[in-house]
Amino acid sequence: MALKLEPGAKLVVATHNPGKARELAEILENRFQLVTAGDLALPEPDETEMTFVGNALLKARAAADASGLVALADDSGLSVAALDGAPGIYSARWAGPGRDFADAMKKVEQRLEEAETEDLAAWFTCALAVAWPDGPAVVVEGRVDGALAFPPRGDRGFGYDPIFVPDGRTETFGEMDPQAKDAMSHRARAFAKLKAALL
Amino acid sequence: MALKLEPGAKLVVATHNPGKARELAEILENRFQLVTAGDLALPEPDETEMTFVGNALLKARAAADASGLVALADDSGLSVAALDGAPGIYSARWAGPGRDFADAMKKVEQRLEEAETEDLAAWFTCALAVAWPDGPAVVVEGRVDGALAFPPRGDRGFGYDPIFVPDGRTETFGEMDPQAKDAMSHRARAFAKLKAALL
Repeated sequence: MALKLEPGAKLVVATHNPGKARELAEILENRFQLVTAGDLALPEPDETEMTFVGNALLKARAAADASGLVALADDSGLSVAALDGAPGIYSARWAGPGRDFADAMKKVEQRLEEAETEDLAAWFTCALAVAWPDGPAVVVEGRVDGALAFPPRGDRGFGYDPIFVPDGRTETFGEMDPQAKDAMSHRARAFAKLKAALL
Repeated sequence: MALKLEPGAKLVVATHNPGKARELAEILENRFQLVTAGDLALPEPDETEMTFVGNALLKARAAADASGLVALADDSGLSVAALDGAPGIYSARWAGPGRDFADAMKKVEQRLEEAETEDLAAWFTCALAVAWPDGPAVVVEGRVDGALAFPPRGDRGFGYDPIFVPDGRTETFGEMDPQAKDAMSHRARAFAKLKAALL
């Protein structure tokens, strides 16, 4: 087998979140027939790995093996230098089951105050994995560096976007035009690598 | 870039063990110019992941990024059904810094006695990862199922081979002719998948 994704191929997206599946479909320019792990009622594996790529791989592998289809999964988050990379792979978990990112952003601000640091350097990471059933998997990672700004600004984007100012810009991801953000985001960079590798 | 390994390419093998590097060179039929992470004095990353593929990926990524070369890493081990998959990713660590596998095999036998089980089902897993510097990575996994036999038999192979009888055979991996073992081993299966994907 060759590690290629043919246009029109059926692809299972290892997410139970319809919004994320829609976003992935847009990024993939509707090139594939997408179904989600939620559509197929596949079980959600525990994210037991300690890295973004590890968790993306684990989710893609589980979906591929349970469905018999090629599977795509992502894992992403915010890492803060002065917090030794936290929240990192726990970015979503800091927001709790209610996905309260206002609260998660407050936690980041509090931790930085406790650390009594002036260092606001941070980066977003997006890992993507594509797994073939009982076959190989391909993983890529995209990253964007920047600095944190408090209080949060802007109501675009999602997650930690309102406190993240990418290097070379003054607005937060939460204030930026979606197209401008998409041109430089960790997710866009990961997808560019994935497309270069597989399309 | 395409996910292909060209014959003659320079490849760094993410191991500090000269014996393992030699074995990998043989499996790869001397198709590549191999250097080891040891040769290049690259740092050895901590194996922090909870899966074989995760640890193989972490080692390949670290070696690729530190050397600027395409890197190959493996991670493998024995999983025992009645011990919930132990020793698994801890297979080498059960042998201690002195790599005393006689002791590690005794530990497996003791744990099975403590579990008061008749279930001797076990499997070997080998994960391989190839990572491009600042680029994608490909991972594969090979597995062979079998049953444990005590006391250990045979002085061929290494690690837990003397207590592992693959399904369909009566000798342990430690007793088998190396060619017969190589035709069916977890490692051979992983390399077959890797070759199919990348060569």
